[in-house]
Amino acid sequence: MFILLVRGGAQFIERQDPTVYASQGKEAPIPEQQITHYAEKGFMLLEGVFSESEVLAFQQELERLRGSTATVAPGETITEPESGDVRSIFRIHESSPIFKALAADKRLADLARYILNDEVYIHQSRLNYKPGFRGKEFYWHSDFETWHVEDGMPRMRALSMSITLTENFEYNGPLMLIPGSHLQYAACEGETPDNHYEASLKKQEYGVPSDTQLEDMVNKGGIVSAKCKPGSVIIFDCNTMHGSNGNISPEPRSNVFFVYNAVSNQVASPFCEQPPRPEYICSREHIKPLP
Amino acid sequence: MFILLVRGGAQFIERQDPTVYASQGKEAPIPEQQITHYAEKGFMLLEGVFSESEVLAFQQELERLRGSTATVAPGETITEPESGDVRSIFRIHESSPIFKALAADKRLADLARYILNDEVYIHQSRLNYKPGFRGKEFYWHSDFETWHVEDGMPRMRALSMSITLTENFEYNGPLMLIPGSHLQYAACEGETPDNHYEASLKKQEYGVPSDTQLEDMVNKGGIVSAKCKPGSVIIFDCNTMHGSNGNISPEPRSNVFFVYNAVSNQVASPFCEQPPRPEYICSREHIKPLP
Repeated sequence: MFILLVRGGAQFIERQDPTVYASQGKEAPIPEQQITHYAEKGFMLLEGVFSESEVLAFQQELERLRGSTATVAPGETITEPESGDVRSIFRIHESSPIFKALAADKRLADLARYILNDEVYIHQSRLNYKPGFRGKEFYWHSDFETWHVEDGMPRMRALSMSITLTENFEYNGPLMLIPGSHLQYAACEGETPDNHYEASLKKQEYGVPSDTQLEDMVNKGGIVSAKCKPGSVIIFDCNTMHGSNGNISPEPRSNVFFVYNAVSNQVASPFCEQPPRPEYICSREHIKPLP
Repeated sequence: MFILLVRGGAQFIERQDPTVYASQGKEAPIPEQQITHYAEKGFMLLEGVFSESEVLAFQQELERLRGSTATVAPGETITEPESGDVRSIFRIHESSPIFKALAADKRLADLARYILNDEVYIHQSRLNYKPGFRGKEFYWHSDFETWHVEDGMPRMRALSMSITLTENFEYNGPLMLIPGSHLQYAACEGETPDNHYEASLKKQEYGVPSDTQLEDMVNKGGIVSAKCKPGSVIIFDCNTMHGSNGNISPEPRSNVFFVYNAVSNQVASPFCEQPPRPEYICSREHIKPLP
C-alpha cells in the first residue's frame, strides 16, 4: 500500500493514484466542470465562498491569535527569519473554536469528502499572515514529497484548502501553482537533515525540486497566480507544485490553511530515518474524522 | 538652484520641479496622451518599440557580457547575495558598442530630450539579469533620493528607461510602480553609512521610505506591475517610487537600463558627507551629451 519514495536523486515518477477519488455517478457538491478542472490541473479556485461578515470574523480571530502568541505552545508560531514578525500559527483547528468550526464547515469538508471519497481529518492547519513590506518567498514544493518522506503519508489522497482573508493581488505574493504538475512525482535530491522541519518552515532548502524539473513542469503547464478576493478558497492536490514570491507591497496576504487527509490514508512511520515531526505539524496521535 | 534635501526624518515634501519640461507647443515624438499619462502618473509603458531581431541582438550581447565579466573592471559586476549569480553589469553604455548605440537610439534619446527639454547624457547604465529561481527582491525606492543625497544631482530633471529583453510576467518580479508618487519627495530616515553604494546595490536598507510613507502613497495611487513583452520600454521619472518582488519562477527578467539626465542638471558634490560614488554608478568626469 505504500509508495515508498525516498530522496536520493532528482527524477520524475508517474502518478499512481487518482486525483479525484469520487465514485462514478456520485453527485458533486460543486459544478462538475470545476471537478474536471481540478482533476486535470491539480487545483481550483472557488470565489466568494465566504461572506464579508464571515471573513471579518476570521480576520478578528486572526488578530486575536496574533496578539496572544505567548499563550500558544512553543514552536507552533513561526516568525520571519529577519524581522521576527509572526508568519504562521499552527494547529488552529484545535486551538481556535472559530477555525475548528471552519475546518468542519460543510462547504469545505463535504468537498474534501467528495474528492477523497472517504471520511476526512485535518492533517495540518495553520494561519499564514504573510505580512506586507518584508514578506519572504516560499520556494516551490509539492507537499506530498514532505508528507510522504518525513511524515509517512502512504498515498496521494490528501488536499489543501486555503481560505483567503485578504485580497490576493498579482503583486503581494499570491499562491503560484504549476498546472498539471500533480500528475508526476518530482523526487528530490539529498538526504533529509536532522530536524529539517524547524528550518524548512522558515525557508525550504531540502526536499525541493531541481531547476531542471521546474523548467520542465513550467514548460508543460505554465504558472497560474491565484488572484482572488477575500473569502475565496484555493483547493489543490497534495502533489501540485506550488510556491509564492515575496511581498514588498504594503498589502498583507493572510489566509487560513487546512490539509484534509482521507482517514484511510493516515500517516505511518516516516520513510526517512528521522523521528516523526511534531503533532502540531502532522496529526498522528489525535486523528478525529470531521463531523 | 539646489534643492538640498538630506536624510534625517521621514516626511513628504511637495515636488518643486516639472515632470515634463517640454516647452509649450513643441511636438511630442509619441502620442500626446502618453505624455499626459507620464506627467500624471510618473511613468509610461511603450510596447513593441524594438523588433524581435533587435531584441535578439541585445540578448546575445547580454550573454556575451555575462560570459566575459572577468574582463569588466572590478566592482562593475554585481552578484546575488546568496547564489553569486550575476545580477547587474554597470556602465554598459561605454563598455559595449551595441548598448552605446542603443543609449543614443533616437527612439529613446529623442523622447528623453523632449521630456527633459535639454540635451541629455547617461547618468548611469546597467544590464539587469534578474535570474530565475533565486532572483531577490529590490525594495521600494525613489532614485532621485539617492542621486540627490549621494551623487549631488541638483533637480528632478532625469528619467530612467528600462528596455525589456525577456517577457515580464506578473509572476517573475516585474517592475512595480506607485502612480503619482513622483509628485512628492519622500525624505528618508537616517544618515548615509560609509560606502553605502556597495551594500545598496545588493540590498537596499538605507535611503528607503518608511512603512507609513509607502502605505500613504499606495492608498492614493495603488500599485502597477509593468507586465510586457520583450522589446518594450518602461520610462519613469527620477522621483517615481518603484521596486520589484523576488522571482522564484524559472523565467529570468532581463533588461537594459539607462538613466538620462539633462545636461543642465549634471551632478555637483554629494549632499551627504561622503566621497562621490564611483564613476560607473554616477557619470561625473565623463559627461558626453548624446548625439
